[in-house]
Amino acid sequence: MERKKNYFAGPSVMPVEVLKQLSNDLVDYQGKGLSMLEASHRGGMFEDMYDECLLTLRELLGISDDYDVYFLGGGATLQFSMIPMNFLRPGTVADYIRSGTWSNKAADDAAKLGSVHYYFDGKEGGFTSLPDPKQVKPSANSSYLYLCSNETIGGIEWQDFPDTGEVPLIADMSSDIFSRPVPVDKFSMIYGGVQKNLGPAGATLIIMKKSMLERQNSNLTAYFDYKLHAKNKGLYNTPPVFSIWAVKLVLDWIKANGGTEGMLERAKLKSGLIYDVIDGSPSFFKSPVDPAVRSRMNVVFRLPSEELEAKFVEASKKEGMLGLKGHRSVGGLRASLYNALPVEDVQALAQFMKEFERTNG
Amino acid sequence: MERKKNYFAGPSVMPVEVLKQLSNDLVDYQGKGLSMLEASHRGGMFEDMYDECLLTLRELLGISDDYDVYFLGGGATLQFSMIPMNFLRPGTVADYIRSGTWSNKAADDAAKLGSVHYYFDGKEGGFTSLPDPKQVKPSANSSYLYLCSNETIGGIEWQDFPDTGEVPLIADMSSDIFSRPVPVDKFSMIYGGVQKNLGPAGATLIIMKKSMLERQNSNLTAYFDYKLHAKNKGLYNTPPVFSIWAVKLVLDWIKANGGTEGMLERAKLKSGLIYDVIDGSPSFFKSPVDPAVRSRMNVVFRLPSEELEAKFVEASKKEGMLGLKGHRSVGGLRASLYNALPVEDVQALAQFMKEFERTNG
Repeated sequence: MERKKNYFAGPSVMPVEVLKQLSNDLVDYQGKGLSMLEASHRGGMFEDMYDECLLTLRELLGISDDYDVYFLGGGATLQFSMIPMNFLRPGTVADYIRSGTWSNKAADDAAKLGSVHYYFDGKEGGFTSLPDPKQVKPSANSSYLYLCSNETIGGIEWQDFPDTGEVPLIADMSSDIFSRPVPVDKFSMIYGGVQKNLGPAGATLIIMKKSMLERQNSNLTAYFDYKLHAKNKGLYNTPPVFSIWAVKLVLDWIKANGGTEGMLERAKLKSGLIYDVIDGSPSFFKSPVDPAVRSRMNVVFRLPSEELEAKFVEASKKEGMLGLKGHRSVGGLRASLYNALPVEDVQALAQFMKEFERTNG
Repeated sequence: MERKKNYFAGPSVMPVEVLKQLSNDLVDYQGKGLSMLEASHRGGMFEDMYDECLLTLRELLGISDDYDVYFLGGGATLQFSMIPMNFLRPGTVADYIRSGTWSNKAADDAAKLGSVHYYFDGKEGGFTSLPDPKQVKPSANSSYLYLCSNETIGGIEWQDFPDTGEVPLIADMSSDIFSRPVPVDKFSMIYGGVQKNLGPAGATLIIMKKSMLERQNSNLTAYFDYKLHAKNKGLYNTPPVFSIWAVKLVLDWIKANGGTEGMLERAKLKSGLIYDVIDGSPSFFKSPVDPAVRSRMNVVFRLPSEELEAKFVEASKKEGMLGLKGHRSVGGLRASLYNALPVEDVQALAQFMKEFERTNG
């Protein structure tokens, strides 16, 4: 069976080698006589795999012992609540850089729990730009500054990150983590749903500076208490076992393919192929995004009319291409080019775009 | 490869037919050219599977249209917080029947968010008994009455449920749901982590009476808002796709094996085999539990000494038997006999127990 070309924004394409290994080991994990799905999370079979997963994760991203690393459930959306519950302290504000749908949702939840200051608001400009990282300065009484490293719907991505000094910097990296090296030390917390570059939906990666826990609000219930999760290495309650196992295999795949540097090369090459087509025909293809902050993960573009966009989606499906319709909230077209998407599938899309222009331009 | 005999308390044994089908369809779902893990949760491939899952779920448990049914992440532990956040209203109390570790954890979280009344407290008796359901009456100013239908650590299970009249009844059924028919109409909310009888860890089943949403506290952030989840059929944010897919297949398996009535027969037969051994040798095997509320899912028992218990665990491992050590908080021995555990594996355990007594009694 030929594989579809998968440009979904998430859940999204996974390395076929990982899918095959999951399939292979699913009924009987490494000859142990049971599935990883059936093993207690308090036993060696799960724990050995989990420890290896965390070790590879730390190695690939260069995470020091100053940070805890573990997984939770509930997706990034749950973190939108948990972050202000834990860290937005009474009498302070939280700075949110509102750069698109996802940081906006995070800010909306925070505003229900405390005072929010929009350091930057891209709403008026249709979420097509970002502030200069060098200019970003948190408020004087800020509990933390929050940003989303890549906005999947707007298709914009931070190329560098601000230096917020003593004020903790928190980032939602759901959609571009492990697509490039990250200066982890700049951040007090990095988190992300795993369902783009890391594996199947169901787990949220948490990378938290240990000293951050001293700033935590008190009297939190169990699941909301990062301190409790950190103390238990993410195993306070039953973790999302399958997602973690799959993430472990994806990390092995990333390591075998050049690590985060290798992923960055791939991302530059792949996104370059599509942006080149867009820039090569400005009368037919339009990128709404400030070129300085174009996302390497989610390339959004428009055609001269909505009719042509609909036709483009229909025609792409006939070529075995999935997920090219833009998000329902903004329309247009979008190609998500996560780590696991083969270069050939991006070449095929570039070719298809040129051909579509030739016959419809 | 011979399958281990798996008595883990959760994550736990799954039907081997389901594991095989997951393995079979993992790389290429039904010839569609991609994995279920790679499909957008906004597309037909996932939605068709999800709709079938919910339909079978409603059919098997006899859930009327008065209820919403969906899945969340974060496990039962997250619900310990969400339930009081949503339904414990200012100026009222929540009645908690504290029957063991799990209801105790739920009550502890609720007590951080409002007033909790322990309608029944089994702590002094070591969590070995339950109140008579016919006698249970909620407090006059009660927002809801909460119980855990089966306590995995104590090994006690409600055989019938109280009638709480106008006061909403909420039950954590994580560890015995789908092991028997349930009078759903008695409950305003039933929920449970799926990692015992329903599938792999990572999803929490929510069954909520629609009228319950009118009682919800206001100004909740997005993930905590049951109304938002209900409105979006559990797809407000990315759901735990793999766990849901596996649950769907487990439900098909339950349906093919006699539904909840069939599961009850199995559970009676299997737990009977072990309780018979215990009752047949009261000088060697001791059940700490009130016989009227013995769990059919988790059979806990003691031997004459801790040394013998340790020896029992070691010897059982040599026979390919996993998970017979009691929970670390209470010691002793425990055999979990969830739906998917084959009858033969329970017969083997009964035989092993008798043999162990013969050589060590």
